[in-house]
Amino acid sequence: MENLKHVFEPKSIAVVGVSSDPKKLGSVILSNLIESNYEGKLYPINPKYDEIHGMKCYKSVSEVPEEVELVCISVPAKFVKTVIEDSGKAGAKGAIIITAGFREVGEEGQKLEEEIIETAKNHGIRLLGPNCLGAMVPSNNMNVSFSTANPPEGDVAFISQSGAFCTAILDLAMEQNLGFSHFVSLGNKSDISENELIDYFQNDSKVKVIGGYLEEVLYGQNLLSQLNEVENPKPLIVFKPGKSNEAKAAISSHTGSLAGSIQTYEAAVKQGGIVEAEEIDQMFYLMMGFSWADLPKGKNIGLITNAGGPGIIATDLVVENGLNIAKLSDETKKALREVLPAEASVKNPVDVIGDAPASRYSDSIEIMEKDENVDAILVILTPQRVTQIEETAKLIINTAQLSDKPIFPVFVGGKYVSPGLTRLYDNTVPAFRNLEDAIMVLAKMNKFREYVESDRQEAKKERSALLENLSKGQYSEEVKATLKDNEVVTLPETLVSKIAVEVGIDIPGQIVANSVEEALEFAGDKFPVVMKATTDAIAHKTDVKALYLNIDSEEKLRKAYAELEATIKQATGKDEAQVLLQEQIISKEEIFIGMNRDGGSDVYTKEGQGFGHLMAIGKGGIYTEVYKDMGYALVPSTEEEISEALRSTNVFKVLDGARGLDKLATEAVIKAAQGIQKMAILYPEIISFDLNPLLVTEERAVAVDLKVFVQK
Amino acid sequence: MENLKHVFEPKSIAVVGVSSDPKKLGSVILSNLIESNYEGKLYPINPKYDEIHGMKCYKSVSEVPEEVELVCISVPAKFVKTVIEDSGKAGAKGAIIITAGFREVGEEGQKLEEEIIETAKNHGIRLLGPNCLGAMVPSNNMNVSFSTANPPEGDVAFISQSGAFCTAILDLAMEQNLGFSHFVSLGNKSDISENELIDYFQNDSKVKVIGGYLEEVLYGQNLLSQLNEVENPKPLIVFKPGKSNEAKAAISSHTGSLAGSIQTYEAAVKQGGIVEAEEIDQMFYLMMGFSWADLPKGKNIGLITNAGGPGIIATDLVVENGLNIAKLSDETKKALREVLPAEASVKNPVDVIGDAPASRYSDSIEIMEKDENVDAILVILTPQRVTQIEETAKLIINTAQLSDKPIFPVFVGGKYVSPGLTRLYDNTVPAFRNLEDAIMVLAKMNKFREYVESDRQEAKKERSALLENLSKGQYSEEVKATLKDNEVVTLPETLVSKIAVEVGIDIPGQIVANSVEEALEFAGDKFPVVMKATTDAIAHKTDVKALYLNIDSEEKLRKAYAELEATIKQATGKDEAQVLLQEQIISKEEIFIGMNRDGGSDVYTKEGQGFGHLMAIGKGGIYTEVYKDMGYALVPSTEEEISEALRSTNVFKVLDGARGLDKLATEAVIKAAQGIQKMAILYPEIISFDLNPLLVTEERAVAVDLKVFVQK
Repeated sequence: MENLKHVFEPKSIAVVGVSSDPKKLGSVILSNLIESNYEGKLYPINPKYDEIHGMKCYKSVSEVPEEVELVCISVPAKFVKTVIEDSGKAGAKGAIIITAGFREVGEEGQKLEEEIIETAKNHGIRLLGPNCLGAMVPSNNMNVSFSTANPPEGDVAFISQSGAFCTAILDLAMEQNLGFSHFVSLGNKSDISENELIDYFQNDSKVKVIGGYLEEVLYGQNLLSQLNEVENPKPLIVFKPGKSNEAKAAISSHTGSLAGSIQTYEAAVKQGGIVEAEEIDQMFYLMMGFSWADLPKGKNIGLITNAGGPGIIATDLVVENGLNIAKLSDETKKALREVLPAEASVKNPVDVIGDAPASRYSDSIEIMEKDENVDAILVILTPQRVTQIEETAKLIINTAQLSDKPIFPVFVGGKYVSPGLTRLYDNTVPAFRNLEDAIMVLAKMNKFREYVESDRQEAKKERSALLENLSKGQYSEEVKATLKDNEVVTLPETLVSKIAVEVGIDIPGQIVANSVEEALEFAGDKFPVVMKATTDAIAHKTDVKALYLNIDSEEKLRKAYAELEATIKQATGKDEAQVLLQEQIISKEEIFIGMNRDGGSDVYTKEGQGFGHLMAIGKGGIYTEVYKDMGYALVPSTEEEISEALRSTNVFKVLDGARGLDKLATEAVIKAAQGIQKMAILYPEIISFDLNPLLVTEERAVAVDLKVFVQK
Repeated sequence: MENLKHVFEPKSIAVVGVSSDPKKLGSVILSNLIESNYEGKLYPINPKYDEIHGMKCYKSVSEVPEEVELVCISVPAKFVKTVIEDSGKAGAKGAIIITAGFREVGEEGQKLEEEIIETAKNHGIRLLGPNCLGAMVPSNNMNVSFSTANPPEGDVAFISQSGAFCTAILDLAMEQNLGFSHFVSLGNKSDISENELIDYFQNDSKVKVIGGYLEEVLYGQNLLSQLNEVENPKPLIVFKPGKSNEAKAAISSHTGSLAGSIQTYEAAVKQGGIVEAEEIDQMFYLMMGFSWADLPKGKNIGLITNAGGPGIIATDLVVENGLNIAKLSDETKKALREVLPAEASVKNPVDVIGDAPASRYSDSIEIMEKDENVDAILVILTPQRVTQIEETAKLIINTAQLSDKPIFPVFVGGKYVSPGLTRLYDNTVPAFRNLEDAIMVLAKMNKFREYVESDRQEAKKERSALLENLSKGQYSEEVKATLKDNEVVTLPETLVSKIAVEVGIDIPGQIVANSVEEALEFAGDKFPVVMKATTDAIAHKTDVKALYLNIDSEEKLRKAYAELEATIKQATGKDEAQVLLQEQIISKEEIFIGMNRDGGSDVYTKEGQGFGHLMAIGKGGIYTEVYKDMGYALVPSTEEEISEALRSTNVFKVLDGARGLDKLATEAVIKAAQGIQKMAILYPEIISFDLNPLLVTEERAVAVDLKVFVQK
């Protein structure tokens, strides 16, 4: 990770492929570097020239007499390997490859890319790109990209898998004055990946907020375990498109990789405390909010407005976003009463009335800011006849800069409110045109605070303890023996039963009885029981009775045993019969637990791609598909996370004894889910798992139909 | 309705309350009228002056020698009545009351408002307001408001219950050049209401689109029946806040009226073909889209983009919004291949690549526009290094203005894309910064087209036929006899059963048998049956057996009858016993049907407030509350609408035989729902209705537990 400094803080840079045409990419990069006041040494490289754009030009990197730390390459694809080779020999430690025409154009490009990776590795060169816009590092006065704009300096580190997404965010940043420490276009991620960058930024004191547009996250499980390790996590805001199948197809044709399921990603977002953005401007506003404001200490929002309507709209949005309308203290109300006209409402939302001058706004904000019941303030302004737009902005700036509570102005409108907004942005106050955006940002900031304040230390321990058992299943050899190349194989029932016992999953007791006495001994403490024929000779005949339910007394058992024994003997023609007895579970609710592995069986190792096993837990039985009422958790999940996944379902209300129903064995359900998680860790060869139903009674949660599939 | 012309197209206006101070409201209104080039006659009124702002000033309206058609009043509340009185005498036909301090400030204001309404009615004066911003009628060069801005002329008629919402929309309109025919601040709606205005605008040829911000819709059922009558409906875009209870409380303190349930409103939106806006800027963009573009003829969207990332994001959004990614014809792909570089994707989304000049965009748009598989085009531009932003805007304008398909440019970014957007707005091309907004508008335009193209004539007939039976129930007298002042009364079971039969709801057959022979005769063709004691003497005793289930043979019936008869005789001490026999329905699914009345029992009359009865239909039994899996329909609903409500639920999949289950009697469920709707129409005194469960088998849908509540 340390060696990423060669890319972001190099003491010298060679720009390979500078041309005499100032419009060509190489020249643009060189001039961007100069204009960004880069303080290190700069070497233009082009074999054709001795001098270029007034600077001495070298024929190759190795010809440069001094040390070159970073090379930026924009020569045609076929020449890139030679440049890397040469740079390596000259001792370069980093390369940014702008050039396109690699993996993204097909097989031949892929081969070219692999050769470059190999060459760079041999020389210890770290690669950014290829096929990227470059990197801007305002915190280091370095713009080594062909971007038309250079963002202001700030504390947001931004990475993007799409160059166009970069330019769109950059354009917004130029308009709204958002500053960046790093602005990195990932390109094909041939070497430097999002995981490593995120780790680097988590440890860089110049960075407060990390933002990323990622079309796929290849090493998901690794990213999560990396986030798990961070002691004081910085907000990581991620926008990942590809929810619809249509978009997944588009991503795949764009990046050549497969996008995982949306549920897997959502579970990862939750487990990793990732802040999710769902649109381009959301991404931007989230970075602005996290960068410019402190986190709210709670979810109680104070609203100040000069109009009733927008106050109502904001109220709806606050509630929809899971926040609260703060209950103002009596002291606050009293103080507000003194500064506001008689018609004004001093109840939250506080209506300062349409004729409010700037001072009435600032008086109200100052009073509300002191109220301990208020964690953040939304200041809503509509451009009415006497509204002092710029003056109000000015006074808000004064208060917002001194407060440790987020104070977010929302100036609703267009032309007239623009100068007010500009003034707010110029003074780094997160401001909005739109109630929805402002409240969404507050909600996500608060959720992130909750994540930061959760017992992450304990969760980390729990996860590590779980993964200590990786691949240590008692029956590993037997499971491995079933694997067939790439095929998906169903584990045999007997093996599944043994593993179920190993991981502590409750399954119905059963025996194969050879006599009625054996049957009675088994059934003694288990009534009611079920009795079945085991022989194939009659298992599928519908015209003979081979299944007896609801056997709840010795009398019934003896009668059924005698009948079934006779049936079996007749069917097999043998003089002995084996009868299968099973506990009959009278369930009050049926639960589904399923699991799918994202990635291969090496997903929990350093090299493993994918997010790991996703557990789905929820309503089972015939309504499983009808309601798709599921909570999700990624392995390794803490007990609390599994419990949360279950509690997030509707069927949990039934387990919990909603509306006078009996309370069922929720703890046993969670224990079953933990058993299944353990199974995935002991046997990561398990690719999917389907338990439907888990029968739940007041005391137990019994798995009656486990199906386990494995694949290498 | 015709007389609203006195307010919107008056030949002369008196402004009452013009002051010598040009900043006071009356003066602002006068100067707004002058600046808007109002062509009628203008009379400033103030008893203190003979001349004001260079115009002759009159002491009162009645002093004006010529006819005054409209008066605009901004004198203090206590003088308003006198002004109305005087104006009435002078023959005025309309009044806009700007003055606040009426219903919204409490009881006294309410009284004052009622007096004014009375006075105006006596003189045949129509009132807009009080407590409003006024009205702007750019289509008639008339700005009779104290707004700081006067919007461009256009074909959008906008009404708002919040003055601040008006100013916010106006400010956006000034920035983005959206034109209006009417811009009306409703204020307290003391006389002119949204219903009447909507009707007026539906019939005004200058209006293409109607927009409204409404905090409550008082006469909802009337609005729906009015929309039902319109032959060629114009889009009615409504933003109605108040989804959360907190917001409802805020509305109630703001407007003094109660907001109905969100489900009622959603059902009304669907039935009335109302276009729903959910945020301020959504409202604005919807008005822009509907005003400036033609409706798309289908849901197939073509995407053109200069970047992969935003293309993927757009794809997600298209699918999420219920639209399709258009499948381009081979001809289109071939033509695109010819104008695009080799690396470009000619599959939808079409990627014209980051270096696309304006002409590559316009070539692609022109080709795509001709494809019959494409109903609308989204042109996505990100500001890359060589992107010709303004030139691209110019070429898009040329194509968009000639096409009858919506072509919506989305310029993603901030500072650099702004001039391009401005150019698009100046040429009335609906343009966006944000993919979400653009796709939302397309989706809602398409949905509106589907509404317009639906068989509205047939639906109208069906609804009228239903309402012909209003209050014509056979047992009306009996129902009315149960009513008690304002109390909610439960209808007696026997009456409910009679009404159920009247409206064709299937209920379990039952008899009270006095002998086993009677019992046998009843059960003969109905096995299995249930047997119960009718006497109160044992109904609640848990230690005696008074309920026999699953009686499916003569033998079992005789045995049960004998036992129960003996039990009853013993309990009552009498020598005879009455036994209740009921068909036992073995249901495969349980359905809930409920109904709540919004408004009073007069809701289906002209004077009635409220939306009428809302039917909820969905999953019944113990999961009713757990899943709240309901579809909704407002009375009077067509059979199709009721069927749609049912089909919108998840439990419908079970009725419909999902995953190998038996198909159940869906038709019978719909018939039951129609029966319940009929009940509400025959007996509008019914305030709520609760049927849980309706037992559904392969052949029948049988109501076993009907509860009906009535209130005046």
